Amino acid sequence: MRKIQITVIQVDCYGPWTVTPSPKPESELQILQSRLYADLQEKFSSLGGLVFQARQDNMLAISNGLTMEDHRRIQMEIVERFPVTVSMGVGCAEKPYDAQVAATLALQSTGSSRNPDRKSKLAGTTVVPPDEDWVEIVHMDVNHSTLLTDTKPIYETQLLINEILTFLMKRMLRHGGMVFYMGGDNFMAVSNGIDEKVLIEILKDLKLELGVEMKAGLGKARRAANAAKLASQALHEIRSGKSRTNIIVKCED
Amino acid sequence: MRKIQITVIQVDCYGPWTVTPSPKPESELQILQSRLYADLQEKFSSLGGLVFQARQDNMLAISNGLTMEDHRRIQMEIVERFPVTVSMGVGCAEKPYDAQVAATLALQSTGSSRNPDRKSKLAGTTVVPPDEDWVEIVHMDVNHSTLLTDTKPIYETQLLINEILTFLMKRMLRHGGMVFYMGGDNFMAVSNGIDEKVLIEILKDLKLELGVEMKAGLGKARRAANAAKLASQALHEIRSGKSRTNIIVKCED
Amino acid sequence: MRKIQITVIQVDCYGPWTVTPSPKPESELQILQSRLYADLQEKFSSLGGLVFQARQDNMLAISNGLTMEDHRRIQMEIVERFPVTVSMGVGCAEKPYDAQVAATLALQSTGSSRNPDRKSKLAGTTVVPPDEDWVEIVHMDVNHSTLLTDTKPIYETQLLINEILTFLMKRMLRHGGMVFYMGGDNFMAVSNGIDEKVLIEILKDLKLELGVEMKAGLGKARRAANAAKLASQALHEIRSGKSRTNIIVKCED
Amino acid sequence: MRKIQITVIQVDCYGPWTVTPSPKPESELQILQSRLYADLQEKFSSLGGLVFQARQDNMLAISNGLTMEDHRRIQMEIVERFPVTVSMGVGCAEKPYDAQVAATLALQSTGSSRNPDRKSKLAGTTVVPPDEDWVEIVHMDVNHSTLLTDTKPIYETQLLINEILTFLMKRMLRHGGMVFYMGGDNFMAVSNGIDEKVLIEILKDLKLELGVEMKAGLGKARRAANAAKLASQALHEIRSGKSRTNIIVKCED
Repeated sequence: MRKIQITVIQVDCYGPWTVTPSPKPESELQILQSRLYADLQEKFSSLGGLVFQARQDNMLAISNGLTMEDHRRIQMEIVERFPVTVSMGVGCAEKPYDAQVAATLALQSTGSSRNPDRKSKLAGTTVVPPDEDWVEIVHMDVNHSTLLTDTKPIYETQLLINEILTFLMKRMLRHGGMVFYMGGDNFMAVSNGIDEKVLIEILKDLKLELGVEMKAGLGKARRAANAAKLASQALHEIRSGKSRTNIIVKCED
Repeated sequence: MRKIQITVIQVDCYGPWTVTPSPKPESELQILQSRLYADLQEKFSSLGGLVFQARQDNMLAISNGLTMEDHRRIQMEIVERFPVTVSMGVGCAEKPYDAQVAATLALQSTGSSRNPDRKSKLAGTTVVPPDEDWVEIVHMDVNHSTLLTDTKPIYETQLLINEILTFLMKRMLRHGGMVFYMGGDNFMAVSNGIDEKVLIEILKDLKLELGVEMKAGLGKARRAANAAKLASQALHEIRSGKSRTNIIVKCED
Repeated sequence: MRKIQITVIQVDCYGPWTVTPSPKPESELQILQSRLYADLQEKFSSLGGLVFQARQDNMLAISNGLTMEDHRRIQMEIVERFPVTVSMGVGCAEKPYDAQVAATLALQSTGSSRNPDRKSKLAGTTVVPPDEDWVEIVHMDVNHSTLLTDTKPIYETQLLINEILTFLMKRMLRHGGMVFYMGGDNFMAVSNGIDEKVLIEILKDLKLELGVEMKAGLGKARRAANAAKLASQALHEIRSGKSRTNIIVKCED
Repeated sequence: MRKIQITVIQVDCYGPWTVTPSPKPESELQILQSRLYADLQEKFSSLGGLVFQARQDNMLAISNGLTMEDHRRIQMEIVERFPVTVSMGVGCAEKPYDAQVAATLALQSTGSSRNPDRKSKLAGTTVVPPDEDWVEIVHMDVNHSTLLTDTKPIYETQLLINEILTFLMKRMLRHGGMVFYMGGDNFMAVSNGIDEKVLIEILKDLKLELGVEMKAGLGKARRAANAAKLASQALHEIRSGKSRTNIIVKCED
């Protein structure tokens, strides 16, 4: 049975930290959050994973291929670089949403996010046996979005982006998938078990509801980095006009 | 007449860059985007401004107090650190949304976001005379959000956050304000001209529609950094239970 | 009387930190040291200063123009970004070496570098009145060093660089100057009060002793950033063959 | 036959870049150099290697275990993050100095460091077969250096550090070793083939010549990261007073 492995990464006691001894400048918090994400992305991706920034103080990673020991090492490196620590929960399941629930439960079992004694905790389980590792990722973008960027007020486009995100999150959730905004007009869905037909339908409904046409590359592989790569390549082929369809699927050999 | 000054920051020809010669790894793009934002935040905030990550390839900054020369210097420093360049448009108006429209138009006048010859362009106008500089910022968060974090699946909370964001964006827009997600359960609105009564109403409607209670600190100052600071202090006072109201306003002397 | 202002920046209790609970990986320490330096450089230079990496756990900055309040703010921002804190001593004098002695004494007055209770301490005095601020910087490089890089083993060139550094440090010290290695074949001296004739003599002796010809741009200004800029411009003019001399002096109006 | 593998990393056409179109601010160059080093260190060390900052525009790495493909990937990631590119030469030999010569020759074969057409070039050979990989590293520090830091002017200590470095570089070179300064009072030598007796003699002579006592941990392993770890652990044991000797050797099983 093929499973996706999700890691929830949570900054320990972050809320209280941001206001001790008094509220820290918002610019500093933004800088810290960005750097923390960049470093976690670097570390997870060097091992084949991929991190989504999510809520920034709570990040979600696809971590197939990373052992508990790998997670532990990453936590230790964060301690050596940042004024905050991170706890992690790891979970796996056939469906991304379910893996995320398992990961959250594992994390919550280590204590409250505001417990000052909870530092660099790690709990959960990885995919066993390793040949069950499996990741499906959809990389989507908006058709002709340059036209929007070049003619509409920036903020208006952002509002549209946010509506697309809400729509996609809700629709994918019905099938156990999770959607993240990646910047620009790019979205990525963790989509294990969601087939092409469902995607076609979702994009069709999106057009009806929001008047926006999108295209999608679907990549499948044993590791997130490779699934994302295949998805981006598939999307690029559609962009380049090599295909008439708005969805292409690529699967690791 | 008091005016807010908005800068639109756009990565030049970013779309094509991300797929040349072939699609770059998503992890690398995320790292670049995070680092670029962190550096722009550092530079704008050291001059009293504040940057919102927005679409990541298109960022929005409150830039009151920054001259065109300051913008130019920041652009040059980005060239010296990153493999990409940024163009900027600067605009001012009484209402944040209008200032953003002016900034976008200034930027668009320098050429298309996909024009390979458009590099480090700068256009627009700053607030004149400087004593008209004025910034109002609302810092909002969700009541008892720790409870959500500690009991609900992370992704579910994120979906809720996104719905709150969409709601706030739409409602503030009616009054010319702009809303940005700052991570965790934090939102910031650029709100020049939106008074306490309107805020109370919006938060009341939010509760009706999404069942979520929020509180808000409103800061007013000549610079974004200071307005944000006052807003965060006001919010912190409510959090600390020093006040029974869910909105506090603080204004620079 | 024109004075240079020097800040000694010392990581608090760094030695013990690097081996707690057990020796941290050398790669992590190098990454932390580099990032800490990059951030301090960013902050000091945005205010017109310049930081030399020196011993890495002890850095030296030319800080003319920075108030004690500026120093305090930088310390607070370091706390918000790094797992370590820095204490600082500030001193001024006519001669760079003497200013550095004053800065060191101020720092040492706040407690031992290994005292776990000494955190983010600040002591010393800045230049008063501000019109006495004065910085002289020499930017030097090796003639035809590309030839070395392209034909000699890298490590051999590095040994030569180190011998040049030791020679320059000792000779400049006699006149109260301090020399720092800046990477490549570049050296910068903080040289208040050292005139062209002395520089000519030092470079002549260097050639006799080590067989290496160097050239030098000398910049003078009220702030380090500007003095360094003038020095680099002067050096660039010699490189470009616009001058037959191997020393050019540029002074702020 | 056990061999060390050295990679020379050279920024392409860096000299001209620093003065185009006019000399870039020294602070910006320092920030770029620090960040480039931090990222290269991150990447090499995640694969078991270790990078020395050396001349900053020319860095030296111990790269046993890294394939040519690994080097290629690192080069590509640098392109995606920085405004400069790096070329690399890889060499191996029994002695560190000889491996460095081979690496330099490989690099030089790809063109001049100032050739604008030389970008992200890679040449040389890795250790074959892999079971011949071997790294020996000495981690040294100065006894009672806190006393110096807490009582002497910072710059004076730095001059002493530099004299120690020159002494160690010259003495190790006779035996084919290379020495690098790591910050604080720390030095690391790449020392394949240099035994304990030679180290004892060098430290004894150092005391005679400069009046400074040092201690040394010697680590031996198949990868640089592990050899450095063992060396640091050995040094830490001496510091902790667990041993009467000033040299301890630790070897990977």
